[in-house]
Amino acid sequence: MILDISSASNPSVKRLKSLFDKKARRLEGLFLAEGLRVCTEALEAGRLPALLAVTHEAEAHPLGRALIAATLDARGQVMRVPPILMSRITGKDNAQGVAGAYPIPDTGLAGLDRSTAPLWVVGESIRDPGNIGTMLRTCDATGAGGLILLDQCADPFSVEAVRASMGALFSRRIAQASGPEFFAWARSGAGQIVGAALEGRTVDYRAHRFTAPSFLLMGNEQAGLPSPYAEQCDALVKLPMRGTADSLNVAIATAVLLYRALDQLETL
Amino acid sequence: MILDISSASNPSVKRLKSLFDKKARRLEGLFLAEGLRVCTEALEAGRLPALLAVTHEAEAHPLGRALIAATLDARGQVMRVPPILMSRITGKDNAQGVAGAYPIPDTGLAGLDRSTAPLWVVGESIRDPGNIGTMLRTCDATGAGGLILLDQCADPFSVEAVRASMGALFSRRIAQASGPEFFAWARSGAGQIVGAALEGRTVDYRAHRFTAPSFLLMGNEQAGLPSPYAEQCDALVKLPMRGTADSLNVAIATAVLLYRALDQLETL
Repeated sequence: MILDISSASNPSVKRLKSLFDKKARRLEGLFLAEGLRVCTEALEAGRLPALLAVTHEAEAHPLGRALIAATLDARGQVMRVPPILMSRITGKDNAQGVAGAYPIPDTGLAGLDRSTAPLWVVGESIRDPGNIGTMLRTCDATGAGGLILLDQCADPFSVEAVRASMGALFSRRIAQASGPEFFAWARSGAGQIVGAALEGRTVDYRAHRFTAPSFLLMGNEQAGLPSPYAEQCDALVKLPMRGTADSLNVAIATAVLLYRALDQLETL
Repeated sequence: MILDISSASNPSVKRLKSLFDKKARRLEGLFLAEGLRVCTEALEAGRLPALLAVTHEAEAHPLGRALIAATLDARGQVMRVPPILMSRITGKDNAQGVAGAYPIPDTGLAGLDRSTAPLWVVGESIRDPGNIGTMLRTCDATGAGGLILLDQCADPFSVEAVRASMGALFSRRIAQASGPEFFAWARSGAGQIVGAALEGRTVDYRAHRFTAPSFLLMGNEQAGLPSPYAEQCDALVKLPMRGTADSLNVAIATAVLLYRALDQLETL
């Protein structure tokens, strides 16, 4: 059954809105994703919302109908809200017609099967949620398995990260660990750890030979890769810099390296 | 002479703050850039602020002193403000110690000399100022000459775009034009126009042979390249997509193509 809700003080509306806050996400074990396209991609990946808000317009769309049916089948709660309330929930003037609260998946490294993809991205203390979402989106495009977040990263389940991921959050694996945990786990199996760095024993990224699986280790936006981590890498690669500045946005550098690795692995 | 200012209602402080607003930027012919590093890069590029605010700490820094001296020499106004006022000006809790109001440069296509760089990026209706800034930053890293913005793009002189450019706004050329103006101008001289597209007569980006100068034409974040523009390109290139989604962030796609083109042009 679809509930009609028009009040901003309705507990379910408040619950959805609360997911902008990290503490509430942790407490509820839920995160917010918006948009019919994104929620349909979630459905295709077998992920369903515990709580789904739809506008009348989205309800009339064939994909909207499929999403609602699947959510109700799985005993999720579905509510019909006016567009103005959707704007309140999502904090957007021009809100999408669909917003869902999805269970936060297990992000333990232990459950990650490295053999499922030739490439994995590892981010160290990535602070900008937009970068995290964009890195996930690029993982999807290049067939990388997902993103392993080390140390003090922004929350990959924040609304901003989810938005930037454009649905890739549902198709890619996300893991969280400390640096030492990651290195111990990585060394317990096959794989090459390739760090992106500007200094030290770097080679031009075009000269490096990627093998599968490769873990591409990217450092923090300001500080880059910590030396103790760089030292544990099998190789350090560097992108040529032809301008006055000496760095790239971390999501940009990740993408150039992923496409290079993909190019090489495909032609092996 | 450096003026000591501690009041948020001071007209110069208000003037700096007003530059968050597009209308004020147009009226004043100024835009806001922050940070000692960025303002020093501006200085190295021969660009000086009409109005400069510094904290005590920044004033004590050798680069800060050089910046202040050059600004005063050029008859710019320099004011010393407490950190809390700098936070007010920049809207940031942890504000940088330097903020300057810089003259908006001429963005006409007529003054752009295409022969000064092997690569140029052209963006069509790019709506996100962060994407514009990131594209400029990547232009700098790859030695591309700059960014030509067509039709309804976000303001490249907005605070968000300037921040994302990390100083590249000062080292790269920015031009603004309509689509028809750009094509007429581009065809009046040498150069290859290469569009990024997902459909139509595309070739894999790795199969395309870039020549200098190349204009890399990137479409709007949602809609991609309009067909009439795609038809006028000398070639359309496509990035392989291995995942469930069918697109990349526009700044990401730009970077992968720029690095590929750079790789090829360097090894010609």
